[in-house]
Amino acid sequence: MMAKLFVVLCIAAVFARRAGAGDPCCGSPCENNGVCVSVGFEDYECDCTRTGYYGPNCTVPETWTWIVKMLKPRPDTVHYILTHFAPFWSLVNRIAFLQDSIMRYVLMSRAHMVSSPPTYNADYGYKSWEAYSNISYFTRLLPPVPQDCPTPMGTTGKKELPDAQQLAERFLLRRSFIPDPQGSNLLFTFFAQHFTHQFFKTDFKRGPGFTKALGHGVDLSHIYGDTLDKQHKLRLHNDGKLKFQMINGEAYPPLVSEAPVDMIYPPHVPEEARFAVGHEIFGLVPGLMLYGTLWLREHNRVCDILHADHPKWDDERIFQTARLILIGETIKIVIEDYVQHLSGYHFKLKFDPKLLFGQSFQYSNRISVEFNHLYHWHGLNPDSFRIGKQEYQYSQFLFNNTILLNHGIRGLLEAFNVQQAGRIGGGQNIHASILHVATASIKHGRKMRFQSLNQYRKHFGLKPYHSFEQLTGDTEMAADLAKLYSDINAMEFYLGLMVEKPRPEALFGETMVEAGAPFSLKGLMGNAICSPEYWKPSTFGGNRGFEIVNSASLRRLVCLNLARALSGCCISCTAGQPARCGQCDGLSGWQRWRDDDATLCGRAAE
Amino acid sequence: MMAKLFVVLCIAAVFARRAGAGDPCCGSPCENNGVCVSVGFEDYECDCTRTGYYGPNCTVPETWTWIVKMLKPRPDTVHYILTHFAPFWSLVNRIAFLQDSIMRYVLMSRAHMVSSPPTYNADYGYKSWEAYSNISYFTRLLPPVPQDCPTPMGTTGKKELPDAQQLAERFLLRRSFIPDPQGSNLLFTFFAQHFTHQFFKTDFKRGPGFTKALGHGVDLSHIYGDTLDKQHKLRLHNDGKLKFQMINGEAYPPLVSEAPVDMIYPPHVPEEARFAVGHEIFGLVPGLMLYGTLWLREHNRVCDILHADHPKWDDERIFQTARLILIGETIKIVIEDYVQHLSGYHFKLKFDPKLLFGQSFQYSNRISVEFNHLYHWHGLNPDSFRIGKQEYQYSQFLFNNTILLNHGIRGLLEAFNVQQAGRIGGGQNIHASILHVATASIKHGRKMRFQSLNQYRKHFGLKPYHSFEQLTGDTEMAADLAKLYSDINAMEFYLGLMVEKPRPEALFGETMVEAGAPFSLKGLMGNAICSPEYWKPSTFGGNRGFEIVNSASLRRLVCLNLARALSGCCISCTAGQPARCGQCDGLSGWQRWRDDDATLCGRAAE
Repeated sequence: MMAKLFVVLCIAAVFARRAGAGDPCCGSPCENNGVCVSVGFEDYECDCTRTGYYGPNCTVPETWTWIVKMLKPRPDTVHYILTHFAPFWSLVNRIAFLQDSIMRYVLMSRAHMVSSPPTYNADYGYKSWEAYSNISYFTRLLPPVPQDCPTPMGTTGKKELPDAQQLAERFLLRRSFIPDPQGSNLLFTFFAQHFTHQFFKTDFKRGPGFTKALGHGVDLSHIYGDTLDKQHKLRLHNDGKLKFQMINGEAYPPLVSEAPVDMIYPPHVPEEARFAVGHEIFGLVPGLMLYGTLWLREHNRVCDILHADHPKWDDERIFQTARLILIGETIKIVIEDYVQHLSGYHFKLKFDPKLLFGQSFQYSNRISVEFNHLYHWHGLNPDSFRIGKQEYQYSQFLFNNTILLNHGIRGLLEAFNVQQAGRIGGGQNIHASILHVATASIKHGRKMRFQSLNQYRKHFGLKPYHSFEQLTGDTEMAADLAKLYSDINAMEFYLGLMVEKPRPEALFGETMVEAGAPFSLKGLMGNAICSPEYWKPSTFGGNRGFEIVNSASLRRLVCLNLARALSGCCISCTAGQPARCGQCDGLSGWQRWRDDDATLCGRAAE
Repeated sequence: MMAKLFVVLCIAAVFARRAGAGDPCCGSPCENNGVCVSVGFEDYECDCTRTGYYGPNCTVPETWTWIVKMLKPRPDTVHYILTHFAPFWSLVNRIAFLQDSIMRYVLMSRAHMVSSPPTYNADYGYKSWEAYSNISYFTRLLPPVPQDCPTPMGTTGKKELPDAQQLAERFLLRRSFIPDPQGSNLLFTFFAQHFTHQFFKTDFKRGPGFTKALGHGVDLSHIYGDTLDKQHKLRLHNDGKLKFQMINGEAYPPLVSEAPVDMIYPPHVPEEARFAVGHEIFGLVPGLMLYGTLWLREHNRVCDILHADHPKWDDERIFQTARLILIGETIKIVIEDYVQHLSGYHFKLKFDPKLLFGQSFQYSNRISVEFNHLYHWHGLNPDSFRIGKQEYQYSQFLFNNTILLNHGIRGLLEAFNVQQAGRIGGGQNIHASILHVATASIKHGRKMRFQSLNQYRKHFGLKPYHSFEQLTGDTEMAADLAKLYSDINAMEFYLGLMVEKPRPEALFGETMVEAGAPFSLKGLMGNAICSPEYWKPSTFGGNRGFEIVNSASLRRLVCLNLARALSGCCISCTAGQPARCGQCDGLSGWQRWRDDDATLCGRAAE
């Protein structure tokens, strides 16, 4: 034991000397989340406080750490167990105590990987009051690679990184459409896009490390606007409602002329297709405006319920309470419908803030720029968009709200429900029309001096990849990547996530899940409404409002806000009759309608 | 048991009917921190979730609540124990395990009385995203009295409250100086003022419910400015330091002409007395500028140390790290010197963030407007200010930095060290020159529709006062208050605190301590630097910086930043020789020098 310790110490000491060139922290010498601090002219110290490790580079496990490490199953094993053995999980899901314990463990173990309070940002690689208090920045999980390092990745890899455009074309550009094996549909695609854009709003004027979404989480700024001024322009100021217009007997967002908020529309867009909603970019694709419309209807529907229960409440109170209810609904839907689908787990995820009461958990959140990057899921997009009997190319689909007007909410729902989304992981599945976004991500990651994929893997408790083959599972891509990067430890974060070999029959690979889940769950459960102070009926206007939150689902969101019933099994429903929405409970609304589902649906409906 | 429950239910139901006039929540029917929600036209519901009580008005204790309530000693008993039995506490203070356990209990039990995340504000008496997210507001522990109530206090008291000016003159105006029996000196007075003004910065342009201090806590904006622009104007941009000027061989803040930040100075103030520091009001009294100067020196001293340890660090990193160190020093001094003195406890308070690790504790803070009001401690101020052989009246003392220039930091320290501060509680001890501030407080409390003193007492686990005699302990004042307010339950918050009978030999009464301590401790320990992520040596530039935080004291702040030794026992020291600062450890630097202390001091120094 002593001998082993001595060897470790010696190796660490040698490493410390070698790192002399540039900042001694360039080589990321501190393991296991130890903090590297340069000392003197060419020395460094690792702060191993509370890492569970000690030694100059925080590499020697304390006894307890060693035991936990021995006993802890690998993430891939956990994933395998959760995605197999359906009968076992079916049992667990029915035993509240077990389900709660597992869910609590999932939440705590994931959330603890995200620093809260937040620490670094694009400009600060050390802790500072500025980085903590300036919420115009996205935060940063790992500090940037120091400025004056031998290579862009610190000490590994080449002096210059490969050309971003070429990388995107070689590794990300779609040759032919690869469907998501988890069967996600475009309803899922646009849900992801509409939901995440409330907190991913890079302020490019200031730089890729800045955000315009100062709420840093689920504040529904995409519905209510990100400023008080926008909010008031969108509000009817009557019974708490949002402005709307009636088209063919159904509610749609108001026109910009009626609710004069800044919206991004190219000049060619006609006046009657310039809808106004909380997020300025929601005119980009009809799929965003679809969800914008559904939430608008939901808000006004909830206002009617609140008004009936509380006839003396003023407009402001109804509005504010409805907003809290919709925030709750969103989190419920995201965890129990959206993340459930994403995960592929047989274990039933549960949104119950009470699980975290009494735990050491922070009810606050700061969006990480790494979360933003990893959520660039452009592979989901198809080659073209089929709605009814028409097929829209990207050029026809973008900024075209007349599609929404022509097909109606019902038409879009039916179409997006059946169209298959693409796979994200494994590379080569981003449509040419949107490849520039991927190229930009690579460039932005470099500008912000992101650490390597392997450094992030280590932070999330994963073993670093030892080769490009292991990363991609594809000989050709691996060979080309090896040529371009020379060292697997120099592999970039975003590109690495995109080319990572997906798990069997899955949308993406291990790193995406293990890195994405902590950010996601922390953001969702760290919302103020999940805190003991807020999570009670009175916050939501009483038992009825609380029940709206606790019974929310994609199906109810859709079903309760359509004038006419929807065809297709997965989210089929009769308007105003929520009970019937559950008729095919075995299926998720995020999954593409497939012919063989009909039987399943028929059986479930019996 | 059942019979008792039935009676309770019936009484509650009758109450519910009676409250018909106006908002049914006017009468604050929900006890034990239950949340009142109006329902229908004249009904209400109490949300008793997690209060430990149930029943329509949350008045029936659950079994566990009942047991805890039975066993829990009264705050006055706890206070008595903590302020007596010195030998017992001397023993406890030496047993780390006991001291830690008690300190953890103190912190958790106090902090849990403050809502975190924050809830209400001056404009929102119900939970809302606006109140949660709009940090321009002070938060509010108890919601405002609803708008349309029978009386200003809800349902109790008269239709109109007594004239504020008359109240101030009758109950708050000083007849003759009443010294603080705890022996506080003016060093304490100005420390309180300088420290609290970093987070109490009412934005009167927007109203008494708004704040300009968006950091909502100990961010040292009074040293570094409350905007990035101010900060940069104050910085030297060299080795992390702040701008300064040398006068008689000692550092002082720069002039406004050198650091062009907005400072409030009347026109008559000469150019050479217009010092520039982080807080615009610090030119108000030399006591504020004294601390401004000490912290400026401390900042630059810490920068020198950091620069020596980290010669390759740039200006920005040294500045930011020094700021974190000074934040840590401030919290350490406030808890272990300042609050220790205030408390009068024989139990030794300890600043150790580790005590809260693993607990359910939120590392975030929002300043409550109630905290702001209760901290209006103008009674501390003397009748005039004696410095050296001179005596300054208020008119001579205000906005007069030439006093600082004439007497020097050393002169002010020696003077403020020996001059006795006034008592806060018990009424009739605010000097005429500053009585208008107290009058304004009463008016602001009304504008924001503060609930009554008794409502606040209940929130903080205290029994409501049943008479004005019990509140004041003074027959005459009680009689007059009874005439003016008619009902003890209509007694206002701020005035109530000021006229409350002080505890024996204490600065103020029970409510001030029981309400103030939670806000104070939550604000101090809820600072980001106290979180597990931040509380480690690397955050403070390594072990040396961490040690500066962990050894901070008023004595060291003073001693390490004076060119010449200070006379007087309590904070006497030899410059640069911190060891000697502890020579009269038995005495606090906040306590007035008294003749009989000389013996004590001599004994301690032996």
